[in-house]
Amino acid sequence: MNSEHFVIKARWLIPMEGADTLLEHAALVIEADNIVGIFSQSALPAAFSDWPVVDCQQHVLLPGLINLHAHTSMTLLKGYADDYALMPWLNQHIWPAEKQWVSPTFVHDGSLLACAEMLSGGVTTFNDMYFFPQSTMDAVLRMGMRAHIGLVVMEFATQYAADAMTYIRLGTQARDAYKHEPLLSFSFAPHAPYTVSDKSFEQLLTYAEQLNLGIHTHLHETEAEITQSLTQYGVRPLARLHALGAIGPNTVLAHGVHLEPAELTLLATQGAHIAHCPSSNLKLASGIAPIAAAMRAGVNVGLGTDGSASNNRLDLWQEMRTSALLAKVKDQNAASLPAYQALQMATIHGAHALGLQARIGSLAVGKQADMVAVRLDALDHLPCFDPISHLVYVAGREHVTHTWVNGTLQYQRTAAGLAHFTQIATEELFAIAQQWQLKIQSARHTAH
Amino acid sequence: MNSEHFVIKARWLIPMEGADTLLEHAALVIEADNIVGIFSQSALPAAFSDWPVVDCQQHVLLPGLINLHAHTSMTLLKGYADDYALMPWLNQHIWPAEKQWVSPTFVHDGSLLACAEMLSGGVTTFNDMYFFPQSTMDAVLRMGMRAHIGLVVMEFATQYAADAMTYIRLGTQARDAYKHEPLLSFSFAPHAPYTVSDKSFEQLLTYAEQLNLGIHTHLHETEAEITQSLTQYGVRPLARLHALGAIGPNTVLAHGVHLEPAELTLLATQGAHIAHCPSSNLKLASGIAPIAAAMRAGVNVGLGTDGSASNNRLDLWQEMRTSALLAKVKDQNAASLPAYQALQMATIHGAHALGLQARIGSLAVGKQADMVAVRLDALDHLPCFDPISHLVYVAGREHVTHTWVNGTLQYQRTAAGLAHFTQIATEELFAIAQQWQLKIQSARHTAH
Repeated sequence: MNSEHFVIKARWLIPMEGADTLLEHAALVIEADNIVGIFSQSALPAAFSDWPVVDCQQHVLLPGLINLHAHTSMTLLKGYADDYALMPWLNQHIWPAEKQWVSPTFVHDGSLLACAEMLSGGVTTFNDMYFFPQSTMDAVLRMGMRAHIGLVVMEFATQYAADAMTYIRLGTQARDAYKHEPLLSFSFAPHAPYTVSDKSFEQLLTYAEQLNLGIHTHLHETEAEITQSLTQYGVRPLARLHALGAIGPNTVLAHGVHLEPAELTLLATQGAHIAHCPSSNLKLASGIAPIAAAMRAGVNVGLGTDGSASNNRLDLWQEMRTSALLAKVKDQNAASLPAYQALQMATIHGAHALGLQARIGSLAVGKQADMVAVRLDALDHLPCFDPISHLVYVAGREHVTHTWVNGTLQYQRTAAGLAHFTQIATEELFAIAQQWQLKIQSARHTAH
Repeated sequence: MNSEHFVIKARWLIPMEGADTLLEHAALVIEADNIVGIFSQSALPAAFSDWPVVDCQQHVLLPGLINLHAHTSMTLLKGYADDYALMPWLNQHIWPAEKQWVSPTFVHDGSLLACAEMLSGGVTTFNDMYFFPQSTMDAVLRMGMRAHIGLVVMEFATQYAADAMTYIRLGTQARDAYKHEPLLSFSFAPHAPYTVSDKSFEQLLTYAEQLNLGIHTHLHETEAEITQSLTQYGVRPLARLHALGAIGPNTVLAHGVHLEPAELTLLATQGAHIAHCPSSNLKLASGIAPIAAAMRAGVNVGLGTDGSASNNRLDLWQEMRTSALLAKVKDQNAASLPAYQALQMATIHGAHALGLQARIGSLAVGKQADMVAVRLDALDHLPCFDPISHLVYVAGREHVTHTWVNGTLQYQRTAAGLAHFTQIATEELFAIAQQWQLKIQSARHTAH
């Protein structure tokens, strides 16, 4: 399965290039880390006929999914505090827990578990933002995933850094140390308009330009953030960031729940991207983002899970389904955001947002071989008249059977239904999770 | 596993009686179709110590889930037409397909597959409404499920009946033939205020009173339905049904998307019940029902999937998660509709709505033994600080391992991850599904 060249024979293949195309009985040819051919199985050239074959004859093959907004190491705080209003949730639960627990080891171990969860759900790339990014990178490289690492910047002191200049310095150093890794790419990640000053934005934007890095930030997640900005700066956060020069084709804005039509036009004109996080936006009562309207205005929109403390599943299948359903009610039109568009958001749109569209996000000759195979032959899948619709409205991450990153099979669900990761024994992952559970749970019982 | 007496030893047990109680290391004792004891494992009386034991030591045990609004046989039209606006969806796709396909065999086979899907997702009881109810009952009895069968009534002619009086007569006959079945109960199911005349309502309400049957109808699913009623009758549909005497403690109203505060008060005063169908309400762009407000007003609310053509998953885990998330954004309060309340909606609230609360809906001595076991030891479940929260926000139907109805194990996921139904070979279910898929698909290709 880790052979350097192989052919995947798939019942269906969705290239995610342009309009909604569904190939039947397709053969995808991989050599090293690249896609070198896409054929009908009956027309597979003789040159490939003796290459090893991966049998996906009951499956849909599609590009690996791209999680456009995550705080992966928060997996260790999954379900730590649910069903609280936003401010008590942050002030009384999440921030104290982060203060108590966040360390390089916490970040490494949480990221490792998050990578496992995402790989087993068909995610091959994620766009992260958290403290101690080098620990996340170590976990990513160990698991063989692809990641876009946000070098986080904020004003206030944490265990990671004392002030904005230190965040910028530590982030730059971390990027310097890992910049040659082929599976990693980088952006600056000023946390949010309300946690980063104009001066720090100006500083990090200068570095971002020098280093050719993008920007990943939270924007317009809540009404409160907008009200506060109007009081403090006299403008809404987007207008402020635009005046600072932060809104451009390398900018990924997480959430974007509260966006007016003129703001959508601005984002489209500037070529900025939205990371839509529907489950998190509901769970924290932030609102329903105007995503179909954003896409109609020409804004590129990808999908994110946010962190496990505000979503609890790093599951892009759930986000695809939820985004398609929510758009219909938001638009009062059941034809809004059809299934194929949800798949685009989770694949090629995410790649565009990260500037990686030449390398990943679709299945095309010359692109890197990030792929996911999904079985569509379970009893609950039948009947199946349209595999594209079924992927979004019927299937779930439990139907993912194979996940390849850069030509290597990194996850497989065995015939017995068990998770198998190429790079790490599942037992080791369980041991890490259980150790943190015991540690955090005993302290939580004292605190709660 | 089908022994007439046994003990289930569970890591956690949620009785769903009153406030949110979570028992640890519990033992549930079953004799014939009844729950005869609930103990701590360490305090299991000697009288039960040599009874057969079902090991659920990594599981949560909870009451079987109750699907409060379904059109089960529409499973054969799953994904038949997605992402269409409501009227083209009905007029150009669903109604023509129903006209072409619906028959006693279609209803039987679709219901059989729906029962399999629901059993494997922990649903033990469903509240149905469709044509040829006797065919649904045959499927239910074959699978060993519990169902509340709606005897459908509408004005217009279908393959099933020519006019409202014929629907009433056929429904009454079907009920007479099956009324002694212990797993079946009944209501009249006037389809909706806009498809049933005052005269037919009066007629069926007379029969319902004579036969002591409840009422199951669609209500206030769309704005259009309300506008039309105001034009035709001068009042909103709820006011009209109330004037007819149809709104009482045996009334289940499906959807209830558009309800004003005074209407919620009326429902609470009358003791009527709402079957909340969040996924379907989103997918058809009907709206977001004011469910947390309804419960605050004192209305009993259960959860439904609706039919497979407007949801695509007969999955109450999805509905629990979606209802909890949607309520938060509807209320602009992340504390709204906490996880335990979602579990109540899917269990004891559903039982109340069907008048079955003395027999099912919670785990208590003397109740009938409808139970579901859910593994919470998958890698994606870790860490787990609160099993109640995890059931709603992290787990999915794929984690259901055992479903018992009336003391009998009717579904089990084997160690190899395969579905095993007690009453039917999985191969037979696949064969039925595939045969219908071929038949419908070939005709669909011609039509589309």
